[in-house]
Amino acid sequence: MILGLDEAIVRRAVSAARPDRAPVSADETAEVFARAAWSGIAEPGDGVAGTLVAALGAAGALAAVNEEHDPAGLAHEVGEATGEELTRESMRAAVERWRPRLVASDALRFLTSAGARGAALLVPDDPEWPAGFGDLGPHRPAALWCLGNAALLASPLPIALVGARAATGYGEHVCAEASTGLVDRGFAIVSGAAYGIDGMAHRAALASGGATVAFLAGGVDRFYPSGHDALLTRIAQAGAVVSELPCGSSPTRWRFLQRNRLIAAASLATVVVEAGLRSGSLNTAGHAASLGRPLGAVPGPVTSAASAGCHRLLREFDAVCVTNADEMAELVLGPQEPLVEAASRQEPEATRVLDAMSSRPRSVDDIARAAGLSVASVRSALGVLELEGLVSETPTGWRRP
Amino acid sequence: MILGLDEAIVRRAVSAARPDRAPVSADETAEVFARAAWSGIAEPGDGVAGTLVAALGAAGALAAVNEEHDPAGLAHEVGEATGEELTRESMRAAVERWRPRLVASDALRFLTSAGARGAALLVPDDPEWPAGFGDLGPHRPAALWCLGNAALLASPLPIALVGARAATGYGEHVCAEASTGLVDRGFAIVSGAAYGIDGMAHRAALASGGATVAFLAGGVDRFYPSGHDALLTRIAQAGAVVSELPCGSSPTRWRFLQRNRLIAAASLATVVVEAGLRSGSLNTAGHAASLGRPLGAVPGPVTSAASAGCHRLLREFDAVCVTNADEMAELVLGPQEPLVEAASRQEPEATRVLDAMSSRPRSVDDIARAAGLSVASVRSALGVLELEGLVSETPTGWRRP
Repeated sequence: MILGLDEAIVRRAVSAARPDRAPVSADETAEVFARAAWSGIAEPGDGVAGTLVAALGAAGALAAVNEEHDPAGLAHEVGEATGEELTRESMRAAVERWRPRLVASDALRFLTSAGARGAALLVPDDPEWPAGFGDLGPHRPAALWCLGNAALLASPLPIALVGARAATGYGEHVCAEASTGLVDRGFAIVSGAAYGIDGMAHRAALASGGATVAFLAGGVDRFYPSGHDALLTRIAQAGAVVSELPCGSSPTRWRFLQRNRLIAAASLATVVVEAGLRSGSLNTAGHAASLGRPLGAVPGPVTSAASAGCHRLLREFDAVCVTNADEMAELVLGPQEPLVEAASRQEPEATRVLDAMSSRPRSVDDIARAAGLSVASVRSALGVLELEGLVSETPTGWRRP
Repeated sequence: MILGLDEAIVRRAVSAARPDRAPVSADETAEVFARAAWSGIAEPGDGVAGTLVAALGAAGALAAVNEEHDPAGLAHEVGEATGEELTRESMRAAVERWRPRLVASDALRFLTSAGARGAALLVPDDPEWPAGFGDLGPHRPAALWCLGNAALLASPLPIALVGARAATGYGEHVCAEASTGLVDRGFAIVSGAAYGIDGMAHRAALASGGATVAFLAGGVDRFYPSGHDALLTRIAQAGAVVSELPCGSSPTRWRFLQRNRLIAAASLATVVVEAGLRSGSLNTAGHAASLGRPLGAVPGPVTSAASAGCHRLLREFDAVCVTNADEMAELVLGPQEPLVEAASRQEPEATRVLDAMSSRPRSVDDIARAAGLSVASVRSALGVLELEGLVSETPTGWRRP
């Protein structure tokens, strides 16, 4: 029994949204069902819910809240189980904010609408669950709802490409090049399906036949923005469209901010391609930084307000300046061997000897005087330069060819 | 007696290039004369010469080299005086490279041509000597030759604006804005008078009536590049044109590289405005970094090869991303108080309550359910939001205006 529902009803609802999974025990099914319920009860990022679920399991937490346990006792129980300190007051406030949404039929509806839409419910034990979500601690989502190829969430090289909706032609061009280049290097492109940079990141990945994952701030049955209906349909076919909110949920400002934490946590690095000072992608960058994930920012003209947010990330948030797909890949894969430029290897004395020479032959003494070097040093430098084919000796002296 | 010259001849020659200085003792005059001589004997940046001059004085060092002291004895004497370890071998090699230029008439010629040109000779004890040169240690110049207002070398706020000769319209635009803005804030603009960014830095400073100093890689009697004859003439009138090389010296690649150390050392910070991967301004940036001076780089489009050097400085050399004169000034003056954005001060609960509301009045219970918050939290958030004028109460509930 969970939320007063019959076991068979729960099992049928869960299998609607997990049609291809092997059958599991009644307890496990109840746990999955409870996670579906929690995904609609607690707002994204609710740390008290995350702590309670971690302590009692999703079903246990649901039962405790439903059965109106004393919040003080509940807080104490959580402390015993997890070592997390929750105050009686925060638990009481949390139970009060969850209770208006404790409706058994809601969870049933989430699962059946997902099933009808072809969206799958994922829980933390599933192999597709993004490994990076572990770093979210109590703020990790209770569940994920996924349209498309859920296996892409377990891609070995996920990288976030995000940026402003108000992108310029420059930003979109750089984004397309970056996305294509990263796909060529085996990366999966994670973004938020917004207009501008996000959309271009997905679009270029799809065009290159690459893997791409869009995290939405509302349910996966409500593509947002509506102008990206066709793009999101293609992502759902060739990639994955994912949300922590159940079907029927609308995006809100709060949910956009919390969605950004999932983009950052699901990715090994986050790159802000183009962003003004008020772009929401700076919030994603902040999540990446606070998760300790590498953060890259693409510079642009200082005369472009659309790049001012990227420049701020470079100035104030220690973002790495990235200018192409190689440098973005390096955020994840570490530095590659630097190129040693021939010019920098040249000895100072050789430079000075070459400076002192021309196509007219000169004696070693003349060269020494002009270069401000001893005759011996000039002889030695000339020897090396001759080997490199940069100077030659003539009957009347040394010259540059 | 110095280099076998009569004291009266030495005094006359020195006063030609220092016409307005108070008379000094014969020893002091000999010392100034010897520095003029060293500026033509040792190539710029010759650390052995710098160490020897620091140990024995310029005149003493000149006498020791001229009188063919035993290099091993000389190295020992320097070690006693300065604690600097010079090997016998490096001293022997140095004496060999200096000797071809040990010609008394050269030093006389430097001083008389400078006098004829109106160029002044500066030595480290002069009040105009750039304070920052102390950090060059044995690589500091023996003397400076200066056309124009030498007092600008002692400007309290010197900043270097450097960059590529092959500048774009973007780079020149940003450079002009930066130079003007820095002049407005009391900075003196230091640069190298090259085509492109350097020239624009000087030009914009002059146009704003600001102080500007050009360091040349050859003598100040040979304006280089020749296409900047008119510009250098104006800098010599309203600013200062400076070189460590005596009149008659031509610029060489070596001297350009060493000239860059003077630009970096004379300035409290160095900003590379626009630079390709092979721009000489990256060498100036390297000098600034190795002197521990703040280094700024202006980003540009990643599609522009003319900004690739700046991006490399940001990526690999810890340069600070600077996008305007304020941020460049901050390199020197330290951070200013950051702006706190109103949006970031808004409480998460207030955001969620606002998200849940519209222009249609809703009950507190409805808002609590939609926002996923307790009724008590919603009431409290509504109170704050009402004070801020963001929501209002109507007979049928709360609404956003």
